Amino acid sequence: MPIALQRHPTSGGLLRSVGAVVKQGGLYGAPRLAPIAPHLLQQRSQHRSITIHTLDHERDIRERVVILGSGWAGYTLATQLDSKKYQPVIVSPRSYFVFTPLLASTSVGTLEFRTALEPIRSRRTKVSFFQGWGDDVNFKNKTVTIEEGVDDPRQGLALAGDRHEDETPLQRENEKKVEAKKGELLDLKYDKLIIAVGCYSQTFGTPGVREHALFLKDVGDARKIRNRLLTCFETASLPTTTDEMKKNLLNFAVVGGGPTGIEFSAELHDIIMEDLAKIYPGLIKFHKITVYDVAPKVLSMFDENLGKYAMDTFRREGIDIKTSHHVQGLRLGLPEEADKSKVRDDHGCWTLKLKEEGEVGVGMVVWSTGLMMNPFVEKALGKPQTLSKHGVRFETGRIQDATQKWVVKKDSKSGSIITNEQLRVVLETSEKEVSASRAILEDVFAVGDCAVLEGTMYPATAQVASQKAGWLAKRLNKGDIDNSAFHWKNMGVMAYVGNWNAILQGGKGGNVSGRAAWFIWRGAYLTKAVSWRNKILIPVYWFVNWVFGRDISRF
Amino acid sequence: MPIALQRHPTSGGLLRSVGAVVKQGGLYGAPRLAPIAPHLLQQRSQHRSITIHTLDHERDIRERVVILGSGWAGYTLATQLDSKKYQPVIVSPRSYFVFTPLLASTSVGTLEFRTALEPIRSRRTKVSFFQGWGDDVNFKNKTVTIEEGVDDPRQGLALAGDRHEDETPLQRENEKKVEAKKGELLDLKYDKLIIAVGCYSQTFGTPGVREHALFLKDVGDARKIRNRLLTCFETASLPTTTDEMKKNLLNFAVVGGGPTGIEFSAELHDIIMEDLAKIYPGLIKFHKITVYDVAPKVLSMFDENLGKYAMDTFRREGIDIKTSHHVQGLRLGLPEEADKSKVRDDHGCWTLKLKEEGEVGVGMVVWSTGLMMNPFVEKALGKPQTLSKHGVRFETGRIQDATQKWVVKKDSKSGSIITNEQLRVVLETSEKEVSASRAILEDVFAVGDCAVLEGTMYPATAQVASQKAGWLAKRLNKGDIDNSAFHWKNMGVMAYVGNWNAILQGGKGGNVSGRAAWFIWRGAYLTKAVSWRNKILIPVYWFVNWVFGRDISRF
Repeated sequence: MPIALQRHPTSGGLLRSVGAVVKQGGLYGAPRLAPIAPHLLQQRSQHRSITIHTLDHERDIRERVVILGSGWAGYTLATQLDSKKYQPVIVSPRSYFVFTPLLASTSVGTLEFRTALEPIRSRRTKVSFFQGWGDDVNFKNKTVTIEEGVDDPRQGLALAGDRHEDETPLQRENEKKVEAKKGELLDLKYDKLIIAVGCYSQTFGTPGVREHALFLKDVGDARKIRNRLLTCFETASLPTTTDEMKKNLLNFAVVGGGPTGIEFSAELHDIIMEDLAKIYPGLIKFHKITVYDVAPKVLSMFDENLGKYAMDTFRREGIDIKTSHHVQGLRLGLPEEADKSKVRDDHGCWTLKLKEEGEVGVGMVVWSTGLMMNPFVEKALGKPQTLSKHGVRFETGRIQDATQKWVVKKDSKSGSIITNEQLRVVLETSEKEVSASRAILEDVFAVGDCAVLEGTMYPATAQVASQKAGWLAKRLNKGDIDNSAFHWKNMGVMAYVGNWNAILQGGKGGNVSGRAAWFIWRGAYLTKAVSWRNKILIPVYWFVNWVFGRDISRF
Repeated sequence: MPIALQRHPTSGGLLRSVGAVVKQGGLYGAPRLAPIAPHLLQQRSQHRSITIHTLDHERDIRERVVILGSGWAGYTLATQLDSKKYQPVIVSPRSYFVFTPLLASTSVGTLEFRTALEPIRSRRTKVSFFQGWGDDVNFKNKTVTIEEGVDDPRQGLALAGDRHEDETPLQRENEKKVEAKKGELLDLKYDKLIIAVGCYSQTFGTPGVREHALFLKDVGDARKIRNRLLTCFETASLPTTTDEMKKNLLNFAVVGGGPTGIEFSAELHDIIMEDLAKIYPGLIKFHKITVYDVAPKVLSMFDENLGKYAMDTFRREGIDIKTSHHVQGLRLGLPEEADKSKVRDDHGCWTLKLKEEGEVGVGMVVWSTGLMMNPFVEKALGKPQTLSKHGVRFETGRIQDATQKWVVKKDSKSGSIITNEQLRVVLETSEKEVSASRAILEDVFAVGDCAVLEGTMYPATAQVASQKAGWLAKRLNKGDIDNSAFHWKNMGVMAYVGNWNAILQGGKGGNVSGRAAWFIWRGAYLTKAVSWRNKILIPVYWFVNWVFGRDISRF
């Protein structure tokens, strides 16, 4: 089966006519270690006979599995696929996988940033990679359109809105033509497509949150938090900073009482008490950590006794949990004061507005609540398109009209892609006058936070994503997917609650809390850490930071 | 002797009248570990009785030594001063000391960035710290003016020009008033002042270099280089990148054949051959490393046989050394081509213009040549000022006229501060009609790259800077400076030349090259690494990156 990489059709063939190079880098060719002489380079650059066919030949008879996304679902699947049968190709705007449970630790320096990362390209894995954004998909031609994103300044950061939201559809169409000409947009053929694009961060349209809050979804966010936290302390230590400003700067708000928000608060408490208290002893009395949540309780996925243990631990640690609180906005500057005549200290802080409390001066707001559906799912998968007769299973018998338009079925509430129990994408038609109103794409799968298995309520967690991906890789490797169905095995939940304590709830009951749970927590993540590199570095950092304290250099 | 921190006088006392807080953070106070209740915080913020006098009392009878700079000179001095006799206060725009010999290793990921850093504030050292820029100095009142720089986006990056160069002196004066009001400008009293501000990077006015070249002076530079290098490879691996563009993107130019440029080229060679060759095997044939230098030879501080060894090693490694070459400019975009009708690949690169070769497409230019005098030395120390009778030794006997104006004596060629053999700053007067034309400030010292000992030609190296600082700390601790004179002991020079080889030239002869020198090179820097934390982390990273390869995640 010919597999092709090609320029995006909107380039009108212009570039092909001047000799567009379609060589993909020869990822599996033999490394050539000795540098070659300039005159040879010269010859080589004029030698452009490597065509799509040569490239396809290199790939042999393997099926190409294009995976959109490099998170828990995409990365797990890519690394577990049998590379003798499949050619896994990850398309992702970031060049690595993030081991998210350790992200909170990296945001305060308990661990170094890279210990939570695995590069997609590595000597260890046989995964091809294009750094870019999935921009469109054509189920009939079996192609995805990729917008190149190697130098994108947004990489490494949480996203809270579509990157093209400022453009009208027409503007975007024109821009796409320009991008295609420049080689920034390209089409990639797939044999199997895995949609694992994940979700964005949901700000519920709260004014100022997208601009001023910090998130904790990616490693760039962790770096921003670490720098901001230390900047707050350093600014507060300036002799010209007033006590009021110190209180504002060292008031840290966490919005969202899920595991991420709770673990971040716990880590924040740890660095402040274990390290900053020794380095800035005069400032500790000004600090405050508050977790806000709209719900009446936090950590709702845990049993009541574990939730109570977490709350008690937080109370002892001086962390305030404010449930049933509503954030109304976040802006630069100080809260409004009655005495307008007062000269104001200009050591920058933010003001958080709460329905219940009014305005509060804060040094940092970490936003860890809510998922927003990935715009790719909304836009690319929301467009009605016709289907080929092959590779589609119509759920009623009649052969379809070739002009009939189909869309991906979505969950009405979350907007997630609906899949069947083989994790295949389900399509539906808006045209009422047909007998088949539902179809299954044989070669298109959706896993991770952007997908939901029809009729289930599995949570949007790393555990579900990686189980789905592991299951799918196994089925594809064995070739027995049609007789199988995915079922999630609840392996339980854990959360670090600070001061070397954790809570742990087994999948089938069995609760542990305190120091013992903390041991299991660390042990579990050390065992799960993907590479041996990180299995070595993680305990080294735990040790070094325990003995010598966390590093507080900012750069 | 009362020691005071005060608002800068240009604030006109306005802020003092509304209760400006002059508390410095209580760096030596007892840590208060338990968080306190909000109502207590409220009380505290209204309780502002801690005044300068309380603060001074806390500091006891120690002399305050204000140290401008946290490099090899400033940091060494601060950490070696006897904290029973002196209160060391570092003022620096960055929050850490950089162990510069390891910077090239961090720029390619052989070591992680933070292994080359030591935070100024730490549990280990008793050093006070203000993050900011020395802006002015008044020898008569013994104060330095500090411009606060906690959140300065330039921190961590090499500087190639004055941060206020776009302002006229009048504009700057007005801005200073605003900054003083906001608390961004403050005066700090000193008993002893150590000027160790170092140098900036010299671009010789070459067009585009300041904007587009990368430097290697600070850890932020190293991070930029690491990201850029990996971006070049990732861009080159895109299927839409033409072979010509691959050649441009993977053409790396290093300008400057001193130890920094040479070691960086060697590290660059290593990551490309040891790691990137395995990860991007199809791209290796396109890469090229070239070192340009205006001088007829590189590594001129080494003996001829070691220089030849380095050149031979580089030739084997495929690194081109182009001596007697002149860089004329650097700009975004591709070199001019004869065939203008050709459609151009838009995967961004730069064009380096050379007098000898014309235009060359490059993916990255690392600029490691030349020192520019720190603008603080030019501006703050270039202003004529009157002196007090105390703490000044006039070199001829007559008592001075109080209105007589003095300036710091500078080296006519480099603009460095001239010091005597006690490293004290030498002043001279421009007024001819006086008998004393030269004076020594008893309490003002200059060390590091910004200073030169009168009559010597000591090189501007970390070795000289740290020896001067160590000597000065010892003399001040013992109180015997007036009977002493600094002499540099040449401990030799080392350079890593790639592929696990180094060259090493002892201070008193004794040359070593090859693998043995590499062993000594690594051993020496491991021994010299400041903290135990880094003494542990550095070999761990050497091991992990040797076994598993360097990390290529970008964020």
